[in-house]
Amino acid sequence: MKSDIQICRDTLLTPIDQIAQVTGIKPEDLTPQGSLKAKVKPSILKRLADKPEGKLVLVTAITPTPLGEGKTVTTIGLSQGLAKVGKKVIACIRQPSMGPVFGVKGGAAGGGYSQVAPMEKLNLHLTGDIHAVTAAHNLAAAAIDARLYHEERHGYEQFARRTELTPLRIDINRIVWKRVMDHNDRALRKITVGLNEPGKTINGLEREDGFDISAASELMAILALSRDLADMRARIGRIVLAYNIDGQAITADDLHVAGAMAVTLCEAIEPTLMQTLEGVPTLIHAGPFANIAHGNSSIIADRIALKLSEFTVTEGGFGSDMGLEKACNIKAQQAERGPDCAVMVATLRGLKANSGLYDLRPGQPLPEAIFAPDEKALVAGFENLKWHIRNAAKYGLPVVVAINRFPQDSDAELAQLKAMVNAQDFGTYVDVAISEAFGKGGDGAIALARAVVTACETPADFKPLYSLSQTLEEKLMTVAEVGYGSQGIELSERAKQQLAELKAQGHDNLAVCLAKTPLSITHDPSVKGAPRGFLLPVRELKLCAGAGFVYALCGNVMTMPGLPEKPAYMALDLDDNGNIVGLS
Amino acid sequence: MKSDIQICRDTLLTPIDQIAQVTGIKPEDLTPQGSLKAKVKPSILKRLADKPEGKLVLVTAITPTPLGEGKTVTTIGLSQGLAKVGKKVIACIRQPSMGPVFGVKGGAAGGGYSQVAPMEKLNLHLTGDIHAVTAAHNLAAAAIDARLYHEERHGYEQFARRTELTPLRIDINRIVWKRVMDHNDRALRKITVGLNEPGKTINGLEREDGFDISAASELMAILALSRDLADMRARIGRIVLAYNIDGQAITADDLHVAGAMAVTLCEAIEPTLMQTLEGVPTLIHAGPFANIAHGNSSIIADRIALKLSEFTVTEGGFGSDMGLEKACNIKAQQAERGPDCAVMVATLRGLKANSGLYDLRPGQPLPEAIFAPDEKALVAGFENLKWHIRNAAKYGLPVVVAINRFPQDSDAELAQLKAMVNAQDFGTYVDVAISEAFGKGGDGAIALARAVVTACETPADFKPLYSLSQTLEEKLMTVAEVGYGSQGIELSERAKQQLAELKAQGHDNLAVCLAKTPLSITHDPSVKGAPRGFLLPVRELKLCAGAGFVYALCGNVMTMPGLPEKPAYMALDLDDNGNIVGLS
Repeated sequence: MKSDIQICRDTLLTPIDQIAQVTGIKPEDLTPQGSLKAKVKPSILKRLADKPEGKLVLVTAITPTPLGEGKTVTTIGLSQGLAKVGKKVIACIRQPSMGPVFGVKGGAAGGGYSQVAPMEKLNLHLTGDIHAVTAAHNLAAAAIDARLYHEERHGYEQFARRTELTPLRIDINRIVWKRVMDHNDRALRKITVGLNEPGKTINGLEREDGFDISAASELMAILALSRDLADMRARIGRIVLAYNIDGQAITADDLHVAGAMAVTLCEAIEPTLMQTLEGVPTLIHAGPFANIAHGNSSIIADRIALKLSEFTVTEGGFGSDMGLEKACNIKAQQAERGPDCAVMVATLRGLKANSGLYDLRPGQPLPEAIFAPDEKALVAGFENLKWHIRNAAKYGLPVVVAINRFPQDSDAELAQLKAMVNAQDFGTYVDVAISEAFGKGGDGAIALARAVVTACETPADFKPLYSLSQTLEEKLMTVAEVGYGSQGIELSERAKQQLAELKAQGHDNLAVCLAKTPLSITHDPSVKGAPRGFLLPVRELKLCAGAGFVYALCGNVMTMPGLPEKPAYMALDLDDNGNIVGLS
Repeated sequence: MKSDIQICRDTLLTPIDQIAQVTGIKPEDLTPQGSLKAKVKPSILKRLADKPEGKLVLVTAITPTPLGEGKTVTTIGLSQGLAKVGKKVIACIRQPSMGPVFGVKGGAAGGGYSQVAPMEKLNLHLTGDIHAVTAAHNLAAAAIDARLYHEERHGYEQFARRTELTPLRIDINRIVWKRVMDHNDRALRKITVGLNEPGKTINGLEREDGFDISAASELMAILALSRDLADMRARIGRIVLAYNIDGQAITADDLHVAGAMAVTLCEAIEPTLMQTLEGVPTLIHAGPFANIAHGNSSIIADRIALKLSEFTVTEGGFGSDMGLEKACNIKAQQAERGPDCAVMVATLRGLKANSGLYDLRPGQPLPEAIFAPDEKALVAGFENLKWHIRNAAKYGLPVVVAINRFPQDSDAELAQLKAMVNAQDFGTYVDVAISEAFGKGGDGAIALARAVVTACETPADFKPLYSLSQTLEEKLMTVAEVGYGSQGIELSERAKQQLAELKAQGHDNLAVCLAKTPLSITHDPSVKGAPRGFLLPVRELKLCAGAGFVYALCGNVMTMPGLPEKPAYMALDLDDNGNIVGLS
């Protein structure tokens, strides 16, 4: 089979203004960026206010493995399948970070014959939204260090006289806003800034700091959760950047930097319209992490898509314990709109990898055995799939299991997996279909599409696990116990103190976002399958007042990846015709 | 008078595809980014190969002062003036950095009725080129630290076995590639990266590093100097990132990262077409510093403009000792094309500020006296203008002095300045005209435009000061002595050693780029006017093998500005209609 970029380049794409027209997006709603991508103005929602909404299909997956389950391939393939069976459909996906593109994972445009195109545009700068997030985020960081420096240099009183500004009296030890970069740059995780050399211009006050990857910026979460520009501006103003020497929060509005940050993001708030290889309209917008943030495509993009289509297919990051949980508890409550159906992506080899019977390491060659029939591993791994189906059922969602078929998979094993799903009673509507979207595009996803249409006709009874009016502690316990099936949470002393502080500061009504490894349902990446009876440790809480949630660190969570020994960037280059090669 | 952004918003602009059409840019050469900006494909040059070139007008200025001389206003105003007198004209300017936009200076789109529009697009992300430079630059930085870490962790031999790559054996003390960010972020000038915490994931090897502003990246100089995509790719491959433990250079090609960097920049190599408020086509491209780099618009943009117009008006950074010197010695030699005429921008108040009779500080209120007639200061300051005219004359260029008139300026003093210019014999063609382009647009620059047309009809005798075949030391001495009028250069021990090393490494044929303060003709910002008899100290040399020059640090050169006490970002916000306010 041809490489992803070759397939993409060999496909005749439709001019984006024609895609827009067919979709019902008028020229005045559109700002084309070249002939194959265009920004869509959120103001379109005013025009469409009275239109009924279509169905919202949320694609999620089993616990991720180093093999990749093909969630984006399934999202794009399902969208193409729905179009094949005559439905009006829009896919909504997140913008890929350049970190993984150059690092281990490669691109995130789907693959094979189920891609968003042109994949090199999607995987690189696209329309610059992540760059805008990076720029707006780092402006606030520069502003904090500059203010700290100027107030310190002149003293608070003199600073006030010189500038007619109220001194912020920033506590140098309580600056909570780090810097960000859209690269996997391990060496920036922990740094010292403001170093000085004797006899030279002063470079500010020395302090410890660090960089996260841009997807981890609270601004990225805000971009994905904002209802419109005014809402985004207000949320940015509420971001807590630091605390003053009396322990009071200093917001972006306090620093008078929120306006400039919003200005920097005023194009990024517009979703980007592209198409799949089969011409299905696709909205790309925002790209929040699925651990320290909610990991789902944007509310604005979903709202536009729901108004313009019968089916909106969107995707949550990682497994259903992460992206789906946050889609239902954080995003749906802020959007006031829940999904109508969950599609659960699983693969034979992914389930076997979840059996715990194989020793798999990222970047290392895979054991051949995992591609061969192995009933023991499949049965053991099935526990993980069961857990994730039951998890989706807790939110009242009908579930369609999408078995993403790989060429090596045997018919017998696929039939066995189907039978195993059908033999269970999950207490909700469950169907199962095999998808061959990678190799066959929409034609390979027709059975899946039909199953999804039927599932969406089931009367849905969506409900989040908690209501925002509960306390933060109650909400944390609910996700841990009801959501994850743990025996409860174990709060560190620090977390207990922070819970009390957050309550005192009036943040008890925010949502909670549990930040843990995606590689296990628990906080421990080595625990596979469908564990029970564990206690979820909450080490520390972090306030995202602008995004509207508090995230709880459960175990080590990496917010700045590193480049591997032999990174993906090594394969990238331009050929003699100036075409990009080596991107997948 | 209305604010710059208000004037811009109240002007009816022409759709960019119409601007392109009138300019002779065909739809297949164009990638529109919205309706008011478009990327122009460098492949247009193949189609235009047989067309004759127009005249190249280089706008430069006296020694800059905190008052601002209005060089961009004059560049845009002159372009509009040339259009008014019936000439086909294209302006070529650099992309503004967001650092100054949010910091002290504000935007760089010109001002009043001589602006590039929409100014908020130009001043913010534009089409993302600076972001692409930042991303490509920092990818290489992440790649170095990652490689250092992996080779150290496994040992050279084991690393080679694991990866089948040749170990680079990077000398941790000789990594010469810093990181960059497009903000004024003082605290990042000097940092420590790779800090580790006991018991946690390793974050790499601890070492001192720092950030420059993105305009200071060698990639920005490369973008501005490349002839085409293939040339850019080859130049990136030659960039020296670090040295190994044997003292040998490690290039971006050695690290296998040059391809990915070029891929990251493959849209940035296309200039962006915009328009002035009067519809004059303007190409925006690259934005290299004028001290550690050559500070001029790109060769690609100039080449396209020269093929499509009778007059290409471009601009060099800072005074003629900086931007014009480098335009003539670095850019013109690489482009094999020199300017036909220099426009020297001066203001009454700027000359008075150059008299040394006023104590002016950035960010502080100006003394009222400087706006009133002051013959003594004007006569003293005139020495600076004389120096700059003579400097341009050294390159065989006819000179038109553009006196940029401010509302407070008196007719008598303007007449006196004109007479002072006319009374001198500069040994070249010199004319003088008053420009009122800020308040009147092109109508205010008709006299200037006519003077420029006449000057361009003068037989030009352009010649750079040195030839690339001279040694680096000879070239440095030539710029210092013949260019600046110093008594020579004073090489530090380090610089002497570096000259020998660069020669041994085969870099003696590169151009030289003198990095010094723009605030004086000397290396000392406090020395005003037209000093003579000074020695230029060369502290250190830095190799830019990809850009094709060696830069020499003469005095302190700041490559990462800081935010002031009351930065420009404080005024920026969105109004209730979602429009940007507070940008100038």
